[in-house]
Amino acid sequence: MAQRFALMIAPADAADDRADFRDTFTPMDVTAPALSVGELSTQRGDGVFESIGVVDGHANEVEAHVQRLAHSARLCDLPAPNLAQWRQAIEVVAAQAPAGEAVVKLILSRGVEHGPAPTAWATVAAAPDFRAVRRNGITVVTLDRGYDLGAGERAPWLLLGAKTLSYAVNMAALREARRRGADDAIFVTRDGYVLEAPTASLIIRAGGDFLTPAPAGGILHGTTQLSVFEYLESHGRTTRYETLTASDLTKADAAWLVSSIRLAAPITAVDGAPLASDPDLTAELNTFLLSPR
Amino acid sequence: MAQRFALMIAPADAADDRADFRDTFTPMDVTAPALSVGELSTQRGDGVFESIGVVDGHANEVEAHVQRLAHSARLCDLPAPNLAQWRQAIEVVAAQAPAGEAVVKLILSRGVEHGPAPTAWATVAAAPDFRAVRRNGITVVTLDRGYDLGAGERAPWLLLGAKTLSYAVNMAALREARRRGADDAIFVTRDGYVLEAPTASLIIRAGGDFLTPAPAGGILHGTTQLSVFEYLESHGRTTRYETLTASDLTKADAAWLVSSIRLAAPITAVDGAPLASDPDLTAELNTFLLSPR
Repeated sequence: MAQRFALMIAPADAADDRADFRDTFTPMDVTAPALSVGELSTQRGDGVFESIGVVDGHANEVEAHVQRLAHSARLCDLPAPNLAQWRQAIEVVAAQAPAGEAVVKLILSRGVEHGPAPTAWATVAAAPDFRAVRRNGITVVTLDRGYDLGAGERAPWLLLGAKTLSYAVNMAALREARRRGADDAIFVTRDGYVLEAPTASLIIRAGGDFLTPAPAGGILHGTTQLSVFEYLESHGRTTRYETLTASDLTKADAAWLVSSIRLAAPITAVDGAPLASDPDLTAELNTFLLSPR
Repeated sequence: MAQRFALMIAPADAADDRADFRDTFTPMDVTAPALSVGELSTQRGDGVFESIGVVDGHANEVEAHVQRLAHSARLCDLPAPNLAQWRQAIEVVAAQAPAGEAVVKLILSRGVEHGPAPTAWATVAAAPDFRAVRRNGITVVTLDRGYDLGAGERAPWLLLGAKTLSYAVNMAALREARRRGADDAIFVTRDGYVLEAPTASLIIRAGGDFLTPAPAGGILHGTTQLSVFEYLESHGRTTRYETLTASDLTKADAAWLVSSIRLAAPITAVDGAPLASDPDLTAELNTFLLSPR
């Protein structure tokens, strides 16, 4: 979807405690050039980002998203973002969202090459219509991520827990999935453990329990997965972080890819083999995820 | 170094055989905004690039660079670049280079989100002064790349042979090297084989032979490494692509990181242990690499 509104943000120091950051914001025409060719986001994918779901003007999970932005910035040695400034930017940008579902993106780039400071901006656009996908589900293929399960903890410079702008591999994996006739991909470690999708987290139901791969395995901690787990726990279900093998996925009683914009997409097949699903629970989860949080 | 000149390029179809592409070029003020926030290069690190060394206005290894740009584009499912157009863009941009050493960058991005075509541009800037580094050398640390040696061939969606804009890990590895008190890093596979540096290729001398890790192992095929091998062969030396272990590096008679702008930087220490060097050959290689090719 075409962006609708963009806000350039002059990043404030994390210690800056002013009450109002609006004089650090510059509204932009989204079709006009806004970034210089010296931008390290564009030259090196050097920066971090967040995508936030907005429903009828309400941005969901704002706190989880700004906290993860700060976490990603820390892993990438970027100056700590001022979270009050980002919360206000989200408010200003979400106010420009169209009715229905929309997506707010936050981008914190290392800035212009040899420049003094990061570059930051936020955008809002109408979200794609995922209603049919949430109902009918998605097929996935498993794709080798090349790493073993310990890589993330052993080698923090691989930035596996950071949501960086360097998403070329994620995009290539989605293209490979489509080439294989599937809708999405699930990354699997070299040693056979399931991780995450290129732009979503995996949740499986095994018997009555809900499981997701442990973030320590070098994956991004999903904000939507966190929300779903809180919801399930509050409804008396058991949730757990676990090391899951590819066969745990194919033997699951149901499985979902969850993310901030598509929300809970039930997985109907893995590598061509049908997977059971739970349409009632899927609908319940999406009703929850579409409600203001 | 600050960019000096930028040229926006309207990418021509690969089959377009016109003699002159200058009407597809738009010179830009490098400090002015040139890119929209919808750019996938900036949102996703989704694109490919090249850095070309320029000496006194002459761009070196142009053919190897444009061929690698096309190779990277193919691996990323980007439309095939029109190489005649890129050759002419390099000419136009290099003509704006300052005297002495400069760097031309080519960027081919997937374009604006949901847009019809890739975005492309080229820039030129003065190069940093690497004369002392070429003479005095660099210290390196080895850093785990997380992958095993077979990952690149097994999982092409990891894009290991493509020079993509998703360089956040490469940049993080350089920061980690500096944190450890070294100048640069050499990536090592999970199974103990040396690969490449974040922005350079590795060449080692073992006895009279010159060896570099085989590109099939999931590394970028270095244009400078190719030039150095051609030079060495033409001077009666033996060169080989080989699977090299970390201990082949520490036992080498000499080793270099070679790249288009820094050229041949002799490695003086690996993980704190001194490495032998060959100052005469290093000087000879850099004299060659600074000559017009």
